[in-house]
Amino acid sequence: MANHDSANEVFLALADPTRREVIRALGRGPASVGELAHPFAITLPSFMKHIRTLEDSGLIRTSKSGRVRTCILDRDRLAVVEDWIEEQRHVWDDRTDRLEALVTDPEETR
Amino acid sequence: MANHDSANEVFLALADPTRREVIRALGRGPASVGELAHPFAITLPSFMKHIRTLEDSGLIRTSKSGRVRTCILDRDRLAVVEDWIEEQRHVWDDRTDRLEALVTDPEETR
Repeated sequence: MANHDSANEVFLALADPTRREVIRALGRGPASVGELAHPFAITLPSFMKHIRTLEDSGLIRTSKSGRVRTCILDRDRLAVVEDWIEEQRHVWDDRTDRLEALVTDPEETR
Repeated sequence: MANHDSANEVFLALADPTRREVIRALGRGPASVGELAHPFAITLPSFMKHIRTLEDSGLIRTSKSGRVRTCILDRDRLAVVEDWIEEQRHVWDDRTDRLEALVTDPEETR
């Protein structure tokens, strides 16, 4: 299913500390690749791999103007993770409700 | 950092639809590997790989009694994802507050 693949890419993109830091930095606003790379002690080609992984996942979009590539966060794609977590909470709440019903009125729910 | 590695493993474990379905199923309560594997059209060895990946990430714990291995969800480990998302929301809120301040009182924030 398309939805599954899409979620896989987002979770995979977030399974790396450098990429999570880039997402956090872009939460403060758009930034150039140079600005984003600055705090990391890795080569630019290595950093660009992370940028491409994030771009492929849809979490960020990039555009080039002259020699500067600017990155921007797509918060809608992070909603994939938020929605999934929210779904799990519903599953847990349903379970808690059922267990509660069982404790307060075991005959009813048998 | 230990925290980073730990989050990496959780995000990586969730970057697969079968493993996300297992997490959802275990949200309803503990279950045996046989019960969990039932909905999936994959071999038991392939399914066991997913179980081990989930176990290594700390998202589930398993215990064996006789021939039955039972799995249980560790919701505390899913909090790694919830907490990270929550952190990003704070970053976005701060940014929105700053932008708002800039619009309502540009002199103040200069």
